[in-house]
Amino acid sequence: MKKNIFYAQSGGVTPVINATALGLIKSAKKSKNFFGKIYAGKNGIIGALKEELIDISKENSKQLDSLKFTPGGAFGSCRLKLKDPVKNKKEFQRILEVFNAHDIGYFFYNGGGDSQDTTLKLSQYCKSMNYELQCIGLPKTIDNDLPITDNSPGFATVAKYIAVSTYEASLDVASMAESSTKVFILEVMGRHAGWLAAASGIIKNKANDPPHIILLPEVTFNSTKFLKKVNQAVKTNGYCVVVASEGIRNSKKEFISSSSDKDSFGHAQLGGVAPKLASMVTNSLKYKVHWAVSDYLQRSSRHIGSKIDVEQAFQLGKKSIEFVKQGKNEIMLTIKGKMKNGRYSWSIGHTDLRNVANKEKILPKGYIGLDGFSITKKCKDYILNLVKGEDYPSYKNGIPEYAKLKKYLVKKKLSKFEI
Amino acid sequence: MKKNIFYAQSGGVTPVINATALGLIKSAKKSKNFFGKIYAGKNGIIGALKEELIDISKENSKQLDSLKFTPGGAFGSCRLKLKDPVKNKKEFQRILEVFNAHDIGYFFYNGGGDSQDTTLKLSQYCKSMNYELQCIGLPKTIDNDLPITDNSPGFATVAKYIAVSTYEASLDVASMAESSTKVFILEVMGRHAGWLAAASGIIKNKANDPPHIILLPEVTFNSTKFLKKVNQAVKTNGYCVVVASEGIRNSKKEFISSSSDKDSFGHAQLGGVAPKLASMVTNSLKYKVHWAVSDYLQRSSRHIGSKIDVEQAFQLGKKSIEFVKQGKNEIMLTIKGKMKNGRYSWSIGHTDLRNVANKEKILPKGYIGLDGFSITKKCKDYILNLVKGEDYPSYKNGIPEYAKLKKYLVKKKLSKFEI
Repeated sequence: MKKNIFYAQSGGVTPVINATALGLIKSAKKSKNFFGKIYAGKNGIIGALKEELIDISKENSKQLDSLKFTPGGAFGSCRLKLKDPVKNKKEFQRILEVFNAHDIGYFFYNGGGDSQDTTLKLSQYCKSMNYELQCIGLPKTIDNDLPITDNSPGFATVAKYIAVSTYEASLDVASMAESSTKVFILEVMGRHAGWLAAASGIIKNKANDPPHIILLPEVTFNSTKFLKKVNQAVKTNGYCVVVASEGIRNSKKEFISSSSDKDSFGHAQLGGVAPKLASMVTNSLKYKVHWAVSDYLQRSSRHIGSKIDVEQAFQLGKKSIEFVKQGKNEIMLTIKGKMKNGRYSWSIGHTDLRNVANKEKILPKGYIGLDGFSITKKCKDYILNLVKGEDYPSYKNGIPEYAKLKKYLVKKKLSKFEI
Repeated sequence: MKKNIFYAQSGGVTPVINATALGLIKSAKKSKNFFGKIYAGKNGIIGALKEELIDISKENSKQLDSLKFTPGGAFGSCRLKLKDPVKNKKEFQRILEVFNAHDIGYFFYNGGGDSQDTTLKLSQYCKSMNYELQCIGLPKTIDNDLPITDNSPGFATVAKYIAVSTYEASLDVASMAESSTKVFILEVMGRHAGWLAAASGIIKNKANDPPHIILLPEVTFNSTKFLKKVNQAVKTNGYCVVVASEGIRNSKKEFISSSSDKDSFGHAQLGGVAPKLASMVTNSLKYKVHWAVSDYLQRSSRHIGSKIDVEQAFQLGKKSIEFVKQGKNEIMLTIKGKMKNGRYSWSIGHTDLRNVANKEKILPKGYIGLDGFSITKKCKDYILNLVKGEDYPSYKNGIPEYAKLKKYLVKKKLSKFEI
């Protein structure tokens, strides 16, 4: 009997995670002799625990197709780290029960490092229980911090958004600087790895081009050096553009964003690196500062997709079905980049889940400029290869036609489970 | 003898102000028998005071053409309110000297309400000194708060950016809400008028669609009502999306963004409405909140231009030359919208500068929902008409090809002037 597919999205979503889902769905649909039904977990692995399985066959095919350009996690994602099955196997037991009840033979988990760990643990648990389950990890993270794979889907689109946004805001502050704002600070995501902040550096061609300062979590933040550099940029160019990773820390390893300030009720204030840096500049240098925090805007910025990113995300989903048909198991799919005669090309490969579970790839030393405030040519070339080409969503009456799924749930067969 | 043109950009820039400049330049170039040279003031009216005149004829025509899709103020803008010429005529005297030295017969000032006032004052001063100068105001403001004109160029592109960004971030928070972030807050510009926050409302089709709360400066902010509404949205939809104008104020007319907090050095912290609202939600409702401040990113968001906005901005520049040739003076150009059989069309008109100088158009009552947290169908239709159609910049190697001007200055003829 043909076994069914369970696909789920995990962790912080990306602008192209749904393209991976679509690649998988389209490819699996073509292999009707091999696979039974295709289910998506509602809100990631929570869907497995709660027995909330979305029946893909009930979705309109036009809406499914628009997943290729729809940001967010169309089936819902989750931030839930399963307990260690050796110490507490309740959750894994439940997943196996649900999978068994719905004839799941293939598990695809679309996530970052933590999620690859979950996939591996689930696979090992199922083996120990003699339940046949092929477990495949699909990479996804705007942070680009997954190891082995040359880049992670989602990164390039957000990198493009950050580069373009920094370029645009730089033109704005440059035109205001003579009589008003002289410093602009943009805060971007990246708690441990500075790939996204680094992406802003690809717009710099000459020494005095913006961004003048890139603050990376890989480099210890020193406020004296920072303020000196800001002042220098203003004196030289009339203005200064700063792009800061949310995860920058001082020499005591404290996050600059974690505020010790209290509001008028004595409550702790939420952080934000950009307003902190803005305060420093205003207080010390007396320059007028503007700051932006891009937060979810960057993570869902599908309106300015990288063509390569979208294609890689889609092909990863497609290829995962091929690998499963070849009998592969306990792997995460990877992207391999290649340069030939100055042209970038790529292919899809795979690696053992053990190589990627719970591991993080930060910016290599050779990618960070000697001054600690910039990126090297090597880094710039790496990112430029990924952001080439534009991929726009389709619009109707001025608004993108993002997918609207019905998300019909399969009838439950088991009793309720408390998470 | 043919007189020369002086064009300048003023106030906060927009993503399409350079399209207006290009329309004017292209049109003036075609009237070689009428006009002499075309000069642009470096940094707005400061260029006139400092005798810094950019010679447009020295610019590469391909670079000039790309002004149509280049954000920021390509010639530099300024925030400088000239002193009243009756009380202190030094600045006006200087401008007249500079204009006289460079044979300026036509003055085009591209700005908001304040700038129209400057244009009017300059015109009146020149008349009193028997200096012939045709003075034309070109509208520009993302805030959409200029009177008489049905809309202001710049607004529609930023409105589109805010609507699309809100849509995208809503998909993101919706997919995370089950186990993580439940509330997303986006801060947008608008100190007195809520047009930009209102723009987020065009993505809402059903009652429970995001954004669930729009905070407008026209409506007094009440934290109890706000928190109740946030909680209600989370209970109903699982998540809540808030779009807040930077200019919202409480019943004491205090800005919510003006912080009384001090940092660890006793310095005042820079404001920001979004982090303030996020604090309220976290402290009172204990929901996980994400927040973004779009700041200059919105104001320079040319990568997602509204087709109508770009065309209107361009035509305003073009038409201003026609009006000058017809002998018109002391006018600001306006956009007149028309609905016929459900289709929007528009034309360019003009109004006396006295009608617009220093005046502000806020959201009319009929555009604000009865609950104070939403917009009406009338408002939605108005904005939807303006954001229809996409206009993208051209890209090279993944990066927009924004104009790079040389900005050669004309040789100075006068002595230095201290501003």
